[in-house]
Amino acid sequence: MKRHILALSGGVGGAKLATGLAAVLPPGDLTVVVNTGDDFEHLGLTICPDLDSVTYAMAGLNDTDRGWGVAGETWQAMAMLRELGEADWFNLGDRDLGMHIARSWRLRAGEMLSQVTARLTRELGIAHAIVPMSDTPVRTQIVSEEGVLDFQHYFVREQCRPVARAIRFEGVPGAAPSPGFAGALARPDLAAVIVCPSNPYLSVDPILAVDGVRAALQALAVPIIVVSPLVGGKALKGPLSKLLRELGEEARNLAIGHHYKELASHVIIDKADASDAEGLRALGLSVTITATVMCDADDRERLARVALSAARIEQEDNGTR
Amino acid sequence: MKRHILALSGGVGGAKLATGLAAVLPPGDLTVVVNTGDDFEHLGLTICPDLDSVTYAMAGLNDTDRGWGVAGETWQAMAMLRELGEADWFNLGDRDLGMHIARSWRLRAGEMLSQVTARLTRELGIAHAIVPMSDTPVRTQIVSEEGVLDFQHYFVREQCRPVARAIRFEGVPGAAPSPGFAGALARPDLAAVIVCPSNPYLSVDPILAVDGVRAALQALAVPIIVVSPLVGGKALKGPLSKLLRELGEEARNLAIGHHYKELASHVIIDKADASDAEGLRALGLSVTITATVMCDADDRERLARVALSAARIEQEDNGTR
Repeated sequence: MKRHILALSGGVGGAKLATGLAAVLPPGDLTVVVNTGDDFEHLGLTICPDLDSVTYAMAGLNDTDRGWGVAGETWQAMAMLRELGEADWFNLGDRDLGMHIARSWRLRAGEMLSQVTARLTRELGIAHAIVPMSDTPVRTQIVSEEGVLDFQHYFVREQCRPVARAIRFEGVPGAAPSPGFAGALARPDLAAVIVCPSNPYLSVDPILAVDGVRAALQALAVPIIVVSPLVGGKALKGPLSKLLRELGEEARNLAIGHHYKELASHVIIDKADASDAEGLRALGLSVTITATVMCDADDRERLARVALSAARIEQEDNGTR
Repeated sequence: MKRHILALSGGVGGAKLATGLAAVLPPGDLTVVVNTGDDFEHLGLTICPDLDSVTYAMAGLNDTDRGWGVAGETWQAMAMLRELGEADWFNLGDRDLGMHIARSWRLRAGEMLSQVTARLTRELGIAHAIVPMSDTPVRTQIVSEEGVLDFQHYFVREQCRPVARAIRFEGVPGAAPSPGFAGALARPDLAAVIVCPSNPYLSVDPILAVDGVRAALQALAVPIIVVSPLVGGKALKGPLSKLLRELGEEARNLAIGHHYKELASHVIIDKADASDAEGLRALGLSVTITATVMCDADDRERLARVALSAARIEQEDNGTR
């Protein structure tokens, strides 16, 4: 029986659903592929915000109150860096720094990001596979009215203030899927792909832009389930609504549907956006309407089960099981 | 009038006298040259323990209770590194890590250690010059009965347990004095050299081993004042007594005197070791007997003044003023 689930995830929102999937699926049945387009080099460290968000969430180390980073975080190194006159626009927590240091020195020693990620997640007791989309750096850039900005410069330093005109991914073509990603795409027991509720432009598109990924997904005879990141026509977090507006799209699920219509078979939308269902169905997509806001473990597991059910229904409809 | 003082310093003990000298001398009159033989690469960071000890002490950031590192230190990054399965034998505080990160990324970006040190000490409000002995890595190694050990492996990881047979400095010859060190040695207004109370074998010898330094010091027509690190025949801190024994020397000021007799004109010893004075004088050295333990700022400034007085007396005796 086909039972392996490939989840594509960005940061915090995606990490929640990935954690829900990990709670309801045995380790062998889930591969979480994470966006690395947000990664950047800062103060000599390689920082992978989305990998870290997924890792911290799946290890139960994430700060659920603040909504990002590690629980029990402190900021002493940052205070010293500030005293030393170093850049302080990207807030590096002390515990978080442990992760960046471990990753950075191993990358510099020649390990691939996949290997480093496998090692560090295993050390944190994570049984499920978390894999970067690629071992080759891909860097999301915002073409803004103020020039081209590296993603974290746009997102954190400039607080998404510049008006975006386009988004581009430096490094593709030229970046192959990581072995874990390629392996999951090629699994004979792959049952479904779940696109976690992450920003389609900033978090999922970089994954789809990796060499051969879009074609491989299109060639798969398995359901591709998109969980919309919108709730009531707004993103819970991050600059999605503003970006959609600036890129000439409405901040509605219809834009999400258009974005994924060549790829997805099914979209899961929030109850607050039930009126979007008709338009999505007109695009040829199946629709599930449910509560998509994940405040706790129950919410995460419930939404994971909804996504898996949608996949199962699609499998049966398509006779691909 | 000759008034510039060149101080040679290792870590904690030397840092105390350097701080005393900085308290009693205007910034233009003091260059503190610091041992970098203890420096090492760890987890991708360039760590310079002696430079940091001197910097923290002169910036008033040092932890006087613990005796090393930064006051108000926390260990959160270290805890995370441990959770991630990384080496934890060298304890990296969070505030300390800010320093290592700042230094490491700037070195990697191509700055010289001298430039980085000048920048970081200036940012911390230190007006006096703290300069590394060389911009080229020199690495102290312990030839022990268990093989050759890098200094921090011997000192921290192995807690000085292996029996030492010899000490060597990888990288010399081949390491030139840093511009600040060479400049101080060449100053026409150089009045004296003060060897701070640091381990002669581990902290001062690496400085003397830098290309041309020993010869330059011998050629100087200025007093060279050694402040002994021994108190009551023991080092206050570190492995000096054990090392002296293993290297076949007595842990007494006579061994220190022999060690420096080609170089020094004057030795300052502690009252507890007053009986060593005669032997030192027999070696042709002038001797000052005083309290050398520095518990607070008053102690540090007093000992600094004693050292400066010794230099002045030597200057007058030698007619070099």
